[in-house]
Amino acid sequence: MNIPLTPIRMLRYAREQFSSRTAIVCGNDRFTYEQFAQRVSLLACALIKMGIKKGDRVAFLSLNCHRFLEAYYAVPEVGAIFVPVNTRLGASELAYVFNDAGAKVLFFGDCFLDTVEALRARVPTLQFLIALDTDGPRRDWMAAQNYEESLASSKPYHANLMDIDENSIAEMFYTSGTTANPKGVMLTHRNVYLHALNYCLTLNPNRLTVHLHTIPLFHVNGWGTVHYSYLGAVHVIISRFRTAAVFRLIEQERVTSINLVPTMATALLEAPERKDYDLKSLERIRVGGSPPAPALIRDIEQQIGGTCFCAYGLTEASPSLTMALIKHDSGWSGEMRLEKQATTGFPIPGAEVRVVDLKGNDVPRDGSTVGEIIARSDGVMAGYWGQPEATANAIRDGWLYTGDMAIVDQDGYLLIVDRMSDFIISGGENVSSVELENALLTHPSVAEAAVVPVPHEKWGEVPKAFIVLKPNALVTEQELIDFCRFRLAHFKVPRSVQFVPTLPKTATGKVLKKDLRSKNMVP
Amino acid sequence: MNIPLTPIRMLRYAREQFSSRTAIVCGNDRFTYEQFAQRVSLLACALIKMGIKKGDRVAFLSLNCHRFLEAYYAVPEVGAIFVPVNTRLGASELAYVFNDAGAKVLFFGDCFLDTVEALRARVPTLQFLIALDTDGPRRDWMAAQNYEESLASSKPYHANLMDIDENSIAEMFYTSGTTANPKGVMLTHRNVYLHALNYCLTLNPNRLTVHLHTIPLFHVNGWGTVHYSYLGAVHVIISRFRTAAVFRLIEQERVTSINLVPTMATALLEAPERKDYDLKSLERIRVGGSPPAPALIRDIEQQIGGTCFCAYGLTEASPSLTMALIKHDSGWSGEMRLEKQATTGFPIPGAEVRVVDLKGNDVPRDGSTVGEIIARSDGVMAGYWGQPEATANAIRDGWLYTGDMAIVDQDGYLLIVDRMSDFIISGGENVSSVELENALLTHPSVAEAAVVPVPHEKWGEVPKAFIVLKPNALVTEQELIDFCRFRLAHFKVPRSVQFVPTLPKTATGKVLKKDLRSKNMVP
Repeated sequence: MNIPLTPIRMLRYAREQFSSRTAIVCGNDRFTYEQFAQRVSLLACALIKMGIKKGDRVAFLSLNCHRFLEAYYAVPEVGAIFVPVNTRLGASELAYVFNDAGAKVLFFGDCFLDTVEALRARVPTLQFLIALDTDGPRRDWMAAQNYEESLASSKPYHANLMDIDENSIAEMFYTSGTTANPKGVMLTHRNVYLHALNYCLTLNPNRLTVHLHTIPLFHVNGWGTVHYSYLGAVHVIISRFRTAAVFRLIEQERVTSINLVPTMATALLEAPERKDYDLKSLERIRVGGSPPAPALIRDIEQQIGGTCFCAYGLTEASPSLTMALIKHDSGWSGEMRLEKQATTGFPIPGAEVRVVDLKGNDVPRDGSTVGEIIARSDGVMAGYWGQPEATANAIRDGWLYTGDMAIVDQDGYLLIVDRMSDFIISGGENVSSVELENALLTHPSVAEAAVVPVPHEKWGEVPKAFIVLKPNALVTEQELIDFCRFRLAHFKVPRSVQFVPTLPKTATGKVLKKDLRSKNMVP
Repeated sequence: MNIPLTPIRMLRYAREQFSSRTAIVCGNDRFTYEQFAQRVSLLACALIKMGIKKGDRVAFLSLNCHRFLEAYYAVPEVGAIFVPVNTRLGASELAYVFNDAGAKVLFFGDCFLDTVEALRARVPTLQFLIALDTDGPRRDWMAAQNYEESLASSKPYHANLMDIDENSIAEMFYTSGTTANPKGVMLTHRNVYLHALNYCLTLNPNRLTVHLHTIPLFHVNGWGTVHYSYLGAVHVIISRFRTAAVFRLIEQERVTSINLVPTMATALLEAPERKDYDLKSLERIRVGGSPPAPALIRDIEQQIGGTCFCAYGLTEASPSLTMALIKHDSGWSGEMRLEKQATTGFPIPGAEVRVVDLKGNDVPRDGSTVGEIIARSDGVMAGYWGQPEATANAIRDGWLYTGDMAIVDQDGYLLIVDRMSDFIISGGENVSSVELENALLTHPSVAEAAVVPVPHEKWGEVPKAFIVLKPNALVTEQELIDFCRFRLAHFKVPRSVQFVPTLPKTATGKVLKKDLRSKNMVP
């Protein structure tokens, strides 16, 4: 008997088994699993009344709120594709994404009213622009009913579970586009369902998990936490990351689980109001993004609480691939434990993750040989929306090539050292731009650093550094080069340094190295 | 990207991630995951050298031992079907099963030598009869190499994961045949894989799980515990259930998890040597089979340790469907908690379980209305081997009809009250044979009781009791009928009582009611 693997089973299960339990805490609103699932069934009906059919794209532009979670389940329920978009994108970037996706419906929060007004004429596919907030301003281009009005005039709709094709697309997320135009990552019902199972299996969330959604829900799956519903977990929503609000919610709702990026972690550590709150309920803090120093992990555990460890994934993998949990029986403690928890981690169940050299051979587990991370997991996407060539380039011989460069230690823990595109090959030697940037950042005058390759007749490529100085800092190009020479192998030292007032960045704060490279090409 | 869902991924993962951890403790032997997986790859090669191909059946007749676990992974690795058989069956029953399955290879333990010798001529499909024990007696009909010799002369074989068809059959178990000939339950790779995920998700086994295999491994999947490998758990093997050995292994290996049937639980409680052992490592004791009294659950928790709760499943569902875990936030404690843990439980993730009346409507959650349990889960079998009619009878409209009758309480916990075939419909009223048997068993003279329906002109059916008296007990038919009348509604009282020296039973100890019924038909 094959039951389709689809996330809509998860909410149905929670409704059946945990109907009266709190599902969502959002501002002053609280919803039980019965209420949550009921609202989802109403939203599904509202979508059908709009003419939404299997395969249609439904976009969502909003800060975190309970309606976001509702859409995560209602859109796949009607067989449509859920497209949450990055709230930090500008109107032009959003218009590009909506057009590329061919979105029919856009739900949006009040604070994006002007943005939506500015872009709507440029996206001819959009048929319904629906306000999420109840008392927001009305414009004539909006749908006649706002979100709550749509629900109020609907009746519960439930798909026949067996009619769901587990290989159809359930969710689509756009890449951040640091190197090219954003691409739509197509995740199937099966991808999302199995990812959730593997994710839950790794973290052993029991039925007491209270998760605070610190990560924007437009990030793929909220990093997988959206489907904690399966276990009857409590979703605590925070619309924007504010340290005081985070602390207050942890105390008030006895939050057990949060996910952070390093900047959030630093903000929480630096917030003086921390000591006013009881944070003892925290059991697990996952840090994603770039691997932080073990000291950060230690500081979080000591000053905030729980067990803190890193995790790694990418949109194309639903996203989780590895977590830096401590392998039991390891006997690690103290600094050793912190060091392991600060790595990229080892694969979660359901994910095969290898680090390979240019010939496709696994690098030795020696903690020094660098290779590219490739992955084969239940969460890996069906492909990029409408981009068979990009898909074929990303998934080769059945493996997803991540473009992330890593080393593997003797215990099987990975550590990402760079993006492949940021690696510089100089005279046959690999130069890690991240290593070079980290070295430059230790200079007292340097605020930000980005290193890219520039062509060189003799060496092929040599590293060049772009530097943002701290206010009032004074340092010369030669001084910085000498500073690096003292610390790094000769071939790793940048050949030139260019001082810039700011570095070009994406909406999510990633440095746009492609811009630096093209800039660099200008004589 | 669709990675085939197959149990062979589980051992590969454990080998990659937990290579040096103890995987199996079996007598004086200990194997790491690296060694375990290596032996599996050698066994796979040995099977291929025997000419075993995709879809071939490989049977296994053995007490619990590490080689049993090896076969669980090696047989599916080569695409063949693993058929572990009940060690309590006689030679004729075994011959029936081997012939029905068309088994090509049979692995067997020394203690089954005479049985195998007796049946081999009756099973023409058997090409290889392979002794599992190293130093056992040799017979001329045995394969030239025993198990260990086969491994020693093999090289590691690994299937290409992507070549596995997740919908092909991985395991086949025979039903106990209380009502008809045993039927082969076909479980696909996908069934087994997803069942294991759902099972692990329910129990939250962390990576410290040390599981003692008290349940014979020929029971479907060892009730799912075979695939604890995925989480790097330690498998502690016991060849036969002996209380002193169970206690010794719990103490010695710091066992955290065991599964029991009620008779095992009673034996452990009654064993005087219990107090000589340290059992504090135990965290979880699951009791399967018939729902026990809450007092048994309490006694186990108090006198053995850990949390004790019931579980329900059937071979056709891989097997787990429900577990009587306490729902968090319930606030239950004391007697209430024990009562819940003594029920049949609520569905695990991945399983939909309903209790329906004859029209297919869900019975109310009132704790009294009886209906049949039907299930739809990732673990439900592909069907019965070579029996499309029996399959169509068991799986109707996409639901598995279990034949088990249950009630549901307001919290969604099921309680099995009877087998459907043992239900007696008398004058339009449902009479539970189990209820009647339990009432009879409270009479001081009654050792065993079995109730079956007999035809009746006026009432359609009426209950008839078969009674085995205690030694030297003296009681008349009328006295027992009066005894029941005092305790039960009039329509439930047996119309006749027949005293018998023994009750007919299967090899696994289940009463063969079909024999009583046919016996009853004789004038």
